[in-house]
Amino acid sequence: GLRTRPLAVDDAGARTQDLAGPVGAGAGAVLLTPAHQFPTGAALTPARRAAAVDWARSTGALIVEDDYDGEFRYDGQSVGALQGLDPDRVVYLGTASKSLAPGLRMGWMVVPPGLLDEVVAAKGRTDWTSSAVDQLTLAEFIRSGAYDRHVRGMRLRYRRRRDELVAAVSGRVAVSGIAAGLHAVLDLPAGTEAAALRSAAWQDLAVVPLSFFAHPDARLPRREALVVGYGTPPTSAWSATLAALLAALP
Amino acid sequence: GLRTRPLAVDDAGARTQDLAGPVGAGAGAVLLTPAHQFPTGAALTPARRAAAVDWARSTGALIVEDDYDGEFRYDGQSVGALQGLDPDRVVYLGTASKSLAPGLRMGWMVVPPGLLDEVVAAKGRTDWTSSAVDQLTLAEFIRSGAYDRHVRGMRLRYRRRRDELVAAVSGRVAVSGIAAGLHAVLDLPAGTEAAALRSAAWQDLAVVPLSFFAHPDARLPRREALVVGYGTPPTSAWSATLAALLAALP
Repeated sequence: GLRTRPLAVDDAGARTQDLAGPVGAGAGAVLLTPAHQFPTGAALTPARRAAAVDWARSTGALIVEDDYDGEFRYDGQSVGALQGLDPDRVVYLGTASKSLAPGLRMGWMVVPPGLLDEVVAAKGRTDWTSSAVDQLTLAEFIRSGAYDRHVRGMRLRYRRRRDELVAAVSGRVAVSGIAAGLHAVLDLPAGTEAAALRSAAWQDLAVVPLSFFAHPDARLPRREALVVGYGTPPTSAWSATLAALLAALP
Repeated sequence: GLRTRPLAVDDAGARTQDLAGPVGAGAGAVLLTPAHQFPTGAALTPARRAAAVDWARSTGALIVEDDYDGEFRYDGQSVGALQGLDPDRVVYLGTASKSLAPGLRMGWMVVPPGLLDEVVAAKGRTDWTSSAVDQLTLAEFIRSGAYDRHVRGMRLRYRRRRDELVAAVSGRVAVSGIAAGLHAVLDLPAGTEAAALRSAAWQDLAVVPLSFFAHPDARLPRREALVVGYGTPPTSAWSATLAALLAALP
């Protein structure tokens, strides 16, 4: 298998300027979530986008852009795909997991032209279970414009949820990563994370500590925080779920 | 990967009595198509079923029963699953590829209870793309009885096609393997296979020589024969497809 190294992340997203240093030396590719860093939620700044592309061009490496929730941007202008900066060096990944349902198991790639044959061959060798019916249905759904209408409608609903979440926790915990996507990060007072997680689990809430997503080799300052997804509850359960979350917070 | 050895096949199906000899020595499993040997089309006889189960019991090996088209049996009594003889030693595989459509990429397994956890874990590690929506839809389709009605209706239509195929080639070539399934084997006069294949390809017919399916290590007498699937053409194209096949035969 492949081995990975941790690239540091701060408030402006992944520190792609570090790629010119030891972390990028000899690496064949970097995996980024430019639209909405997972899990912290920052959008990668233009300077850091340029740094990533410069590194890829000078080393011959690839950038894998995982745009897992870029459809759901709530504030200000839309953030373009990094892939547009250099279609020959960036592999773009999109997915229906957030915009439709994870159970569909469908996504899409925009691949540098020179890699296309290799990618198709590799997928053909390993993937025998992608439903042709679902793929044709999704293609028709997109072509007809219904997918875009669905995303626009869901964006309004998710933004309302996000606003309600932010209002509900306001004054109790700091919330961040909320300009896009279907999750937020709630920073907790020191020493309260474990109890909050126990309480959330007790109420059947699937919240996860931020530290869960850290690379095993990353040396990070301790940060007590919860990653809270707000896309999953059905409409009828949303208010009760939000109340349960509030009850779990310190 | 796994290595395989060829088990001989004759008019009564796979020669499972040979498993007690060198071909079965040290083997962990045997793959059989008991309902309709692929590609020759024989149904495995009761004596050979018993021989396979005896071998599996005495050696601790597994039998993998690939029931790829058992829904479509046209003549006489239905042939039971080998799995019923020993559910602890037989892994049963079914599929929607023939009964509904190969593009669904769905099948099912009946697994010995002691293997279930291992099989689920292995599938979870390697298969991330099976559509949950399609699985739930198929489950509902089966539960409602609509799947059985569909299979019964298609069985009549496929039997009619088979009868038309047999009548059309009658007196020109010998046809076999036709008690079930969606394909037949047409034996050709010596020296005519290559020309028939060229002619079929020229007419855009996807017929395949029987020898294509031989195990690389099998030492088989030369048999010139075509494997002809009759399930694929849409109803509107069936007559023209049959005429094209007749034109391709010697």
